Amino acid sequence: MEKTKRFGVSMENKLLKKFDSFIKRKNYPNRSEAIRDLIRLALVDEEWKETDHDVIGVLVIVYDHDRRELTSSMLDREHKHTDKILTTLHIHLDHENCLEAKIIKGKMKEVQKIADELISLKGVKFGKLIPATFGKGI
Amino acid sequence: MEKTKRFGVSMENKLLKKFDSFIKRKNYPNRSEAIRDLIRLALVDEEWKETDHDVIGVLVIVYDHDRRELTSSMLDREHKHTDKILTTLHIHLDHENCLEAKIIKGKMKEVQKIADELISLKGVKFGKLIPATFGKGI
Amino acid sequence: MEKTKRFGVSMENKLLKKFDSFIKRKNYPNRSEAIRDLIRLALVDEEWKETDHDVIGVLVIVYDHDRRELTSSMLDREHKHTDKILTTLHIHLDHENCLEAKIIKGKMKEVQKIADELISLKGVKFGKLIPATFGKGI
Amino acid sequence: MEKTKRFGVSMENKLLKKFDSFIKRKNYPNRSEAIRDLIRLALVDEEWKETDHDVIGVLVIVYDHDRRELTSSMLDREHKHTDKILTTLHIHLDHENCLEAKIIKGKMKEVQKIADELISLKGVKFGKLIPATFGKGI
Repeated sequence: MEKTKRFGVSMENKLLKKFDSFIKRKNYPNRSEAIRDLIRLALVDEEWKETDHDVIGVLVIVYDHDRRELTSSMLDREHKHTDKILTTLHIHLDHENCLEAKIIKGKMKEVQKIADELISLKGVKFGKLIPATFGKGI
Repeated sequence: MEKTKRFGVSMENKLLKKFDSFIKRKNYPNRSEAIRDLIRLALVDEEWKETDHDVIGVLVIVYDHDRRELTSSMLDREHKHTDKILTTLHIHLDHENCLEAKIIKGKMKEVQKIADELISLKGVKFGKLIPATFGKGI
Repeated sequence: MEKTKRFGVSMENKLLKKFDSFIKRKNYPNRSEAIRDLIRLALVDEEWKETDHDVIGVLVIVYDHDRRELTSSMLDREHKHTDKILTTLHIHLDHENCLEAKIIKGKMKEVQKIADELISLKGVKFGKLIPATFGKGI
Repeated sequence: MEKTKRFGVSMENKLLKKFDSFIKRKNYPNRSEAIRDLIRLALVDEEWKETDHDVIGVLVIVYDHDRRELTSSMLDREHKHTDKILTTLHIHLDHENCLEAKIIKGKMKEVQKIADELISLKGVKFGKLIPATFGKGI
């Protein structure tokens, strides 16, 4: 079990009242958990600005699987990066559209490059790379 | 096969030159595909501001699976929304941290609420909801 | 002088250490001030999702002032909203480009509409609307 | 007058229809202008990822001017960077709150650092740095 510390925070009454209703809306069990989450988000934002160590992200793409040539180009591009694309989740949205979430790990520029390569394929209609975190020490 | 139209776009030489090197950096096969992608991103942004029809999004969370009570609270909360959480992808980051990507579908406020409920759990260290799209007509 | 309250926050040692170096990097005088800022940012984000009361934002645009017709179209459009565009800051970037920051106040949809009307003018090269806050009670 | 080029773009009928109503909603005079704006936004996003040349941004802050010590700390910090903070726009929101927009120019890390130093001051309730552009060649 990890050790925790306790420290005091001072806050204007009005701000505290607004914060407490934020906590209720967001369903947090208590102030500490809400504060820890806000801190972690700020830390993960920073993590992705450092370029020299590994990051992990999730690439979400929506594409038209009917385009015969698309699936093979995707596989081609993905196979160049088998060590970085850890896994893929696939669902069928309707008879023509698919959504995939791919977990990608590597140096920031590499992860961005793989995402760019897949998003730019003809037939891929939507793509967004979401910075995530390994969760170490946060 | 869907019908396409062709139309002319005029652009200052300098901007066109910068656009062409953007296309190369991003690996697009041609200008049309790059332009279509920029348009689709702008449309998806708007899609999520309308609150009355269904949207689809991907929730990425990182959590500490060692916290015994967490997994059961997560399952409890998820089971209230089995019709909206379509599927989940799970990977182990290290001996204590997991990353999950969940595909959630529903009215925008519902999707947001489910995301908030899971992100606010103690032990969930990071959470972000990514607006995606059904890809219809884009 | 406003009344303040003090309450305890518990945090894992590792997270607290990372938070403390974040505070140093960002130059915060103490933990309370950093935490209050993170809370306020989260509240302002929410403020802009409510559509029924007034919001305040800053529109940043960059445009080519050489285009004769532009300045008059801008003034035309702005004059329809003299009660909402509170003030404008203008600088010359070089012999052809200007940057302006405009403070706009009104219902969220109105503020967005004014921003859209100015950004869409030919000659306006860049435009972004930044959600700000009246600062009341936060 | 700058030279322009014209080139053809092909697009699925459905997407074109959606794009045309986007153009109407956003008030663009024609497709070319809307497309140029989307391209410029993507270019400015990239501009701010390069760290070695100058960037320009707008810092928006909201603060409580009643705090006697605040205004002098702000001036102290700003005077260290007189060459980088080009100009400031100031409005009174109510009897206690002020909003300022500051135009800051310099290397990306410097601009970010100045923004951080001002945002972190006690009494500054809200702060956001908006990446803008010099508009050169776009």
